[in-house]
Amino acid sequence: MIIVLKPNITRRQENAVLKEIQKLGYEPHVMRGVARTVIGAIGDERTHASLETLTAWPQVESVMPVQKRYKLVSREAHPSSSTVKVSSNVILGARKFHVMAGPCSVESEKQLMATAKVVKQAGATVLRGGAFKPRTSPYEFQGLGEKGLKLLAKARQETGLPIVTELLSEQHVDLVAEYADILQIGTRNAQNFQLLIAAARTGKPVLLKRGLSMRIEEWLLAGEYILANENPNLIFCERGIRTFETYTRNTLDLSTIPIIKNESHCPIVIDPSQGCGRADLVMSLCKGAVAMGADGLLLEVHPNPAEAWSDGAQQLTFDHFTRLMREIKPFLAAAGRD
Amino acid sequence: MIIVLKPNITRRQENAVLKEIQKLGYEPHVMRGVARTVIGAIGDERTHASLETLTAWPQVESVMPVQKRYKLVSREAHPSSSTVKVSSNVILGARKFHVMAGPCSVESEKQLMATAKVVKQAGATVLRGGAFKPRTSPYEFQGLGEKGLKLLAKARQETGLPIVTELLSEQHVDLVAEYADILQIGTRNAQNFQLLIAAARTGKPVLLKRGLSMRIEEWLLAGEYILANENPNLIFCERGIRTFETYTRNTLDLSTIPIIKNESHCPIVIDPSQGCGRADLVMSLCKGAVAMGADGLLLEVHPNPAEAWSDGAQQLTFDHFTRLMREIKPFLAAAGRD
Amino acid sequence: MIIVLKPNITRRQENAVLKEIQKLGYEPHVMRGVARTVIGAIGDERTHASLETLTAWPQVESVMPVQKRYKLVSREAHPSSSTVKVSSNVILGARKFHVMAGPCSVESEKQLMATAKVVKQAGATVLRGGAFKPRTSPYEFQGLGEKGLKLLAKARQETGLPIVTELLSEQHVDLVAEYADILQIGTRNAQNFQLLIAAARTGKPVLLKRGLSMRIEEWLLAGEYILANENPNLIFCERGIRTFETYTRNTLDLSTIPIIKNESHCPIVIDPSQGCGRADLVMSLCKGAVAMGADGLLLEVHPNPAEAWSDGAQQLTFDHFTRLMREIKPFLAAAGRD
Amino acid sequence: MIIVLKPNITRRQENAVLKEIQKLGYEPHVMRGVARTVIGAIGDERTHASLETLTAWPQVESVMPVQKRYKLVSREAHPSSSTVKVSSNVILGARKFHVMAGPCSVESEKQLMATAKVVKQAGATVLRGGAFKPRTSPYEFQGLGEKGLKLLAKARQETGLPIVTELLSEQHVDLVAEYADILQIGTRNAQNFQLLIAAARTGKPVLLKRGLSMRIEEWLLAGEYILANENPNLIFCERGIRTFETYTRNTLDLSTIPIIKNESHCPIVIDPSQGCGRADLVMSLCKGAVAMGADGLLLEVHPNPAEAWSDGAQQLTFDHFTRLMREIKPFLAAAGRD
Repeated sequence: MIIVLKPNITRRQENAVLKEIQKLGYEPHVMRGVARTVIGAIGDERTHASLETLTAWPQVESVMPVQKRYKLVSREAHPSSSTVKVSSNVILGARKFHVMAGPCSVESEKQLMATAKVVKQAGATVLRGGAFKPRTSPYEFQGLGEKGLKLLAKARQETGLPIVTELLSEQHVDLVAEYADILQIGTRNAQNFQLLIAAARTGKPVLLKRGLSMRIEEWLLAGEYILANENPNLIFCERGIRTFETYTRNTLDLSTIPIIKNESHCPIVIDPSQGCGRADLVMSLCKGAVAMGADGLLLEVHPNPAEAWSDGAQQLTFDHFTRLMREIKPFLAAAGRD
Repeated sequence: MIIVLKPNITRRQENAVLKEIQKLGYEPHVMRGVARTVIGAIGDERTHASLETLTAWPQVESVMPVQKRYKLVSREAHPSSSTVKVSSNVILGARKFHVMAGPCSVESEKQLMATAKVVKQAGATVLRGGAFKPRTSPYEFQGLGEKGLKLLAKARQETGLPIVTELLSEQHVDLVAEYADILQIGTRNAQNFQLLIAAARTGKPVLLKRGLSMRIEEWLLAGEYILANENPNLIFCERGIRTFETYTRNTLDLSTIPIIKNESHCPIVIDPSQGCGRADLVMSLCKGAVAMGADGLLLEVHPNPAEAWSDGAQQLTFDHFTRLMREIKPFLAAAGRD
Repeated sequence: MIIVLKPNITRRQENAVLKEIQKLGYEPHVMRGVARTVIGAIGDERTHASLETLTAWPQVESVMPVQKRYKLVSREAHPSSSTVKVSSNVILGARKFHVMAGPCSVESEKQLMATAKVVKQAGATVLRGGAFKPRTSPYEFQGLGEKGLKLLAKARQETGLPIVTELLSEQHVDLVAEYADILQIGTRNAQNFQLLIAAARTGKPVLLKRGLSMRIEEWLLAGEYILANENPNLIFCERGIRTFETYTRNTLDLSTIPIIKNESHCPIVIDPSQGCGRADLVMSLCKGAVAMGADGLLLEVHPNPAEAWSDGAQQLTFDHFTRLMREIKPFLAAAGRD
Repeated sequence: MIIVLKPNITRRQENAVLKEIQKLGYEPHVMRGVARTVIGAIGDERTHASLETLTAWPQVESVMPVQKRYKLVSREAHPSSSTVKVSSNVILGARKFHVMAGPCSVESEKQLMATAKVVKQAGATVLRGGAFKPRTSPYEFQGLGEKGLKLLAKARQETGLPIVTELLSEQHVDLVAEYADILQIGTRNAQNFQLLIAAARTGKPVLLKRGLSMRIEEWLLAGEYILANENPNLIFCERGIRTFETYTRNTLDLSTIPIIKNESHCPIVIDPSQGCGRADLVMSLCKGAVAMGADGLLLEVHPNPAEAWSDGAQQLTFDHFTRLMREIKPFLAAAGRD
C-alpha cells in the first residue's frame, strides 16, 4: 500500500500513521517528496487488515493499493491459458471455437426442438435456453422452471448438444445442476456471492456474466469466488455494460477480450444478443468478437423472434443465424481458430 | 403501445404488423403522418404479450410503451403516502424523521454496544449493523453471521432501538427475519428477484437499496416484487449510483427524493455513507436529504473508523455523528419534520 | 509519482526504469515489497516531464501520481474562500445568497422584460438569458445573437440586475463581454480551452459549467485555465452529469457543493433546471442546494414554458418561481445565509 | 410527435392540449386506450416548433418524437454509401481500407520524419500528428502550433502522405486548413458547433470524433452541422466513450461501426489508441474494427512512447505498428477489403 500524507501536517500526526501501519502488520517506509510525504507499507495486502481505512484519518490524503486483489484467476498465478471441459467435444479455451445458441427462454417443446436442430446443423456446439428467467417486472414471464429444464434435457438427448442455462436462486442449485452442463450466472446476480459459492460447489462449469456496471477488477474478483471455492471451471462472459447510450440496450465492451486474456487464464465468451439488444447488430459484433480472440459466442435464436416470450428484439431467426455461422468462418480462419 | 413503421414499406408489410397486433390481443389504430406511419395498439400493456418484440420486424422502426410498468408501488394506484410501521415508535413516512445509524459491520459486542448507546443518545431511532456482508473479494471479512445477529438483538434489548440488517441469501431468510426489524436488501441484490420474493414473504418491512446502475423505473419494479408478494412494508433507499466520477465512490442521486415521492407512495430514506464513500461529505449530504424531503437517513458510525473491518473511509466517529444530529435540526424544522 | 514494477522482471529491466526516472529529472527511491517493487520518483510532478509515459514500458505495471494537478484553484494554495464581485450588490461566495434567473433563451423584448421584472420582484439578483444558444441540431433555434444581448442590456437598465449570458465562440468574445456582467461557459464548451483562455482574458467573472461527463479533477483543471490566465473571478456551476438514468435529463450531482468547497476556494452555484430537465423537480433540488451550502442558484423562468423556443420542459412559470423563492427562505436561514 | 396524457384529467385539460397542438402547426389525432389517452400530432417535426415543451404541462405525461432529427447524414436521405476523397489515392468509404498513423503530438522534425517514413513503409496512407493539442491541464504541453503544421507539410512532401491534424479553435481555421488535408475535430469540441460550422466552410474533409459522452443521435446531429453547411466530406471517428470502467481510459464502442453504417451513408474510422489508452490492447481492437467493417483506423505511433510529450501510454512503437499492419491483413481479406 502507498499512503500519501497531506501537506503541512505535524510530525506527531505522521508518527500516528506510522504506528497504525505497524499495528496492522505492515512495515512502513517513508519517502519525503517535494510536495508530499509518501509512506510505502510493506506487507501482503491480501492477508493483513486493509490499510484503506486510513483514508478516514485527517492527515491522510489518499491510500493506493499496489497489489492486485485477485489471485487464483490471475494469469500471474497461472501463466498458461486454462481450458474448461464441458463434454468430450466441448472444451472451452482451446483452439476450437464454440458457439452456444438457442432461445432466450424455453417456451415449448416444439420451439426448443426446432431451434436445437437448426443451431446444431448450422454448427453450434452448445444449446442455450432459459428455464428460470430473471425479469425486471413481476408481471413478465418468469420461465417454465423445471419443465423447461426437462425440455432442455430432451433436446440434449436428441441433438447431443450440452446445455447452458441460468441459475438464479440458491434454492435451485441442485435442480439446475442436475440438468445443466454449464451453469450460467446472469448479470443481475454477478455479485450475488452466495449464489456464486453455491454454483462453484457443484463442480460444474460456471459461465459468469459481467454485471451491468461491474468494473473488470470486480468481475475478476467475482470469478475468484468460483476458484476459491475449488471449482477451476470458470468461463467469463461479456454481455454489455450500462452506459448513457440509448440506441443499444447495453454497450458491448469487446476490449474485455484482450483484457481478460492479459489478466486471467480463464476462457471468455461474448454475448452480443444481450450486448446490444438488437438482432441487426449481432452479425457485425460476432465478427469483431471472433477477430479479437474470444473463445466462443453465446447467441439467442428463435423460430419467430417477434412472438418470443422474452427479449424478442435481440433474437435471431434461423436464417439469420445460419448466415451468421457461415459469415464468421473467414474470420475464424484469420484468427487461427477452428 | 405505439408502433412506428419505417418509411417506404409496402402495404402488405404494414398489414402484417396490423395482423400481429390483433393476434397479440390489441386493437390497432393507424395514423398516417408526414414522414412516418404510426400505429397505436390499444389494450392493457401489462396483461397482453408484449408488443416490443415487433422491434425485430424489418418494417418496424421502433416500439414505444405508453403505460407505466409498475402498478402497486405507483402513486397513481395509491394517491396518499404510505407509512411503514417498524415498531410503536418508528413509523417511516410519517411526519417524524428517522435516523438509522450504527456500524457498517458488527465486529464485537464492545464495538456494537458502544455505538448503539451513542447513536441512541444522539437521537437515532433505529440501529443498523451488518451481520452478513457482501464483499467484492472472497478474501475480505464476510461478517460475523448469526453471532452478529445475536449481538444486534442484545443491543436492541439494551437500547430499545429496532434493528435494520442486510439479508443477502435466501438460505438466511428465516434466520435474519427472526432477529431483524427491517430487512435490508443491498445494492448488489437489488435485482435478485428470488431474494426479493423471499424477503417479501416474511411480512417484515423491507428496505430496498437502489442497484448500482438501476434506472428509477427498474427500482420501482423491484419494489413491485415486494408489494406483489403481499408485503406493503416497502422502504426505498437511495445509496448512490455508479458513474464515471472517481472522486466519490458513488454519485448520490438526491433527485430520487422528489422522484420517488412523485411516482410512488412509499417512503424513501437516504444512505449518504455508501452514497459518497467519504465521511467528510456526509454532513452536507444529510442536510441536503433533509431539505429535499427524505423520510430518514441510514448512516454508518464506528468507534474508530480507521480500524473498521469494512468501509472505514465512510464511517463517522461518535463526535462527528453527534455534531451531525445537532446540525441537521434547523433543516428538519425548515422541512416541517420532527 | 509512484511507479509499480511488474513481478519477475530482471534487475536490468529495473535499472532501465531507474535511469529513465533520473533522465526525466526525478530522484528515484526504491521500495521492495512482498509482492511488488515500487519506485517513488521524487520531484515536482507539474514541472518535470510526466512519468506517466512509463506505463508503456513492459516492466511497468502502473504509474500513480501523488500530487494534485491543479494549483491556483486549490484551497491548499488559497485557504480562505474567495468572493467574486459582479456588481456593487452582487458578490458571489459571500454570506449573501444569489439567485440568477431568467429565460433559457431571450425570445423577445416582451418576454424578457416581463420575466426580468418578475424575477427581480421575487428576489433574484442576477438576470440570466441566452442570446447565443448551442443546439444539438442545426435546425433548432440558435438564439437572437446581438439583438438578444441588446435586449438583455435594456432589461439590466430597467431592473438594475446584472446579466449572465453564454459565450460560445471565440469570435463573439468582444461582443458578449461588452454586454455581459458574467460570461457563462456552457457544458459543451467546458473543455474548449481556447474559449476558456479568451473568456479569462476579458477579466469578467466567468461562470464555468461542469462538462456533461467531466470528472471533478478535470473541472478544477478547466477552472485552472481561467486563473492561470490571470482572471481570479471564477464561479463553478454544477448542472448535472450524464448517467444511465433516463427519468431525468441529467443527474444533478449535489455532492459537488462540499467537494468544491473542500478542494477549491472559488464559489459554486447550482443549476437545477439543466440538472434535471424537469420543472417539477426544481423546487426540491433548490432546497437541497441551499442546505448543502451552495453560493447561489441559476434558474430558468419563462412566462409560458410550453411555448418556449428552447428547453420548455425545465423552465419555471412566474408563479412557480415566486413560490420557490418563498419556500427556500427557511432553508437559507438554517444554512446561515441571507 | 406522440403526446401521452395523464390519466384522470378533465376534458377541458385535454382540449387545451389539442388547441396548443393546432396552434403549433400540427394536426392532432386522438386515440383512447385502456389506461391512457394518446394524441398523435401530425406534421413535420423538424419544421414546426417543437411539441416537446408540452411536457411542462400538468396534464401531459410524456411527449415522444417519432421522426429522426437528422436528415442529410441519414442513410434514408442517401441510400448508397458516400465516399470522401482526401487525395487521388485516399478515398475513404470505398473498398480500400485506410490507416492514418503518426505521433499524438508533433514534437520535432526528427521525431516526425522518422515516424512518417516508418508508417508509410508499413502501409499507412495518411499521416496523423497534432500541432495544436487540447490538454486537460494548462501546465501540459499545448503543441508546437504553426511550427508543427510546417513540419507536417514537410513530412507530406517527403512521403506523399496526406495529413490529418486537429483543429481546436475558430481562430486557427485558415491556418490549419492551409496545411491539413483532413481537419480533425476532437472529442472535447464535438459539440462546439461554431467550430463545426467554421470547419465545414473550409470545404476540407472533416473527421468528427465522437464526444466523450455523446449519444449516437447527438453525434449524427453534430455531423449534420457539417453537411448542412454544404460540406459533404464528413468522416465519423469513434474514439471511446466515458464509462465507469477504470481499467481502460475510455470504452471503445465498436458497435458504432454497424450503427453508423445503418443510420448514415458517411464513412467511419476507429481510433483505438484513444479508445483504450493502452498500447497493449490496440492490436486486438484493430482486428475487431476491421472485422466489423470500419473504413479505416487512426493510430498513434511514436519512436519512443515512454518519452512522448503527450499520451505515451497509448502510442505504439515502430515495431509494434509494423507487426500490427501485418497481422490485420488476413482480417482485411476476410472483410473483403484491400
